[in-house]
Amino acid sequence: MARQSMREAIVDAAVAQFHAKGYNAAGVKDITDAAGVPKGSFYNHFDSKESLALVALDRYGAGLRTHELAEPGTPPLARLRAHFEFLREETADADFTRGCMFGNFGAEIGDHSETIRAGVRTSLGLWASLIAGALAEAQRAGDLRADLDTERTARFVLNAWEGTLIAARSGRSGEAFEDFFDTVFGTMLTPPPGTS
Amino acid sequence: MARQSMREAIVDAAVAQFHAKGYNAAGVKDITDAAGVPKGSFYNHFDSKESLALVALDRYGAGLRTHELAEPGTPPLARLRAHFEFLREETADADFTRGCMFGNFGAEIGDHSETIRAGVRTSLGLWASLIAGALAEAQRAGDLRADLDTERTARFVLNAWEGTLIAARSGRSGEAFEDFFDTVFGTMLTPPPGTS
Repeated sequence: MARQSMREAIVDAAVAQFHAKGYNAAGVKDITDAAGVPKGSFYNHFDSKESLALVALDRYGAGLRTHELAEPGTPPLARLRAHFEFLREETADADFTRGCMFGNFGAEIGDHSETIRAGVRTSLGLWASLIAGALAEAQRAGDLRADLDTERTARFVLNAWEGTLIAARSGRSGEAFEDFFDTVFGTMLTPPPGTS
Repeated sequence: MARQSMREAIVDAAVAQFHAKGYNAAGVKDITDAAGVPKGSFYNHFDSKESLALVALDRYGAGLRTHELAEPGTPPLARLRAHFEFLREETADADFTRGCMFGNFGAEIGDHSETIRAGVRTSLGLWASLIAGALAEAQRAGDLRADLDTERTARFVLNAWEGTLIAARSGRSGEAFEDFFDTVFGTMLTPPPGTS
């Protein structure tokens, strides 16, 4: 296997292993076995499991399709809903397991690794700013009440999403998603008063 | 050490170790060392680390003072706010580490232990029903808009809280708490229209 493709195989395997098992339970050997590369080759590519975890976080983030939050074509609130519906489907397809790697790493390992904590903070921050952009666009279009602070609301909605994933996993059901969609899109992100 | 006090020492140490380190990173030996008991004595009291984790979850839950959500004397929304303020202070005092053991176990280990998953689900469910009770009381008092589904809103608020803790930890700051309090108490749990 060429050097670059070996590195890619390790990263792909790391995303899957970290997402399914968590940081501590996914060992370097689990990852190299899943990648089909010798364990000894790991340190040719990464300094540590922690460095790999940071690359895996980025790779995982790319799969969340957050860029779609900024793509014109559909009204911004419909776009935001479609984004979370896509993520809900992924979780439902996984039988309500795995959750979000950002939240998982934040809960499990952020207190113990400054590197991973900073990675999670950056990842959540970028995601929240894309959500905030969609909310600001909805306000400009007159689709969203003007009194909401879009940055604050975006961070809150994203945090609510992370907690919703934990509840969906613990309940092994979609009830928490219903609570999220109904509350966020039915109660919070409403049109300005007097519009219909 | 008497048998019962040895068991209590193990449970107390388990709560602290699981909360600070997470499930996988807190080994049985870490727990018995912290409890000041021989490792060999562990299995006189518990079948497995998993069984101990379930007892630790209950013990942790008792420290959340959720019973105060149902105590009369202060208006229900003020009581709800005071409850989350108490929990926020605990997290701030721990330099924005540790989070909530329910959410931590749910994120880290719920997918891999049916016992712990069920324990987390039950714990979150009981907590949400106490929050729902406070919301229903606020509606009856005319302090909360009547169109909110109190059960659904309670579950959502609790899930938002769990995600807020992850964000506060990853940011090592109180910003996520400000987002939570401002959004929940300023935007979501508002009085019926036409009241002031």
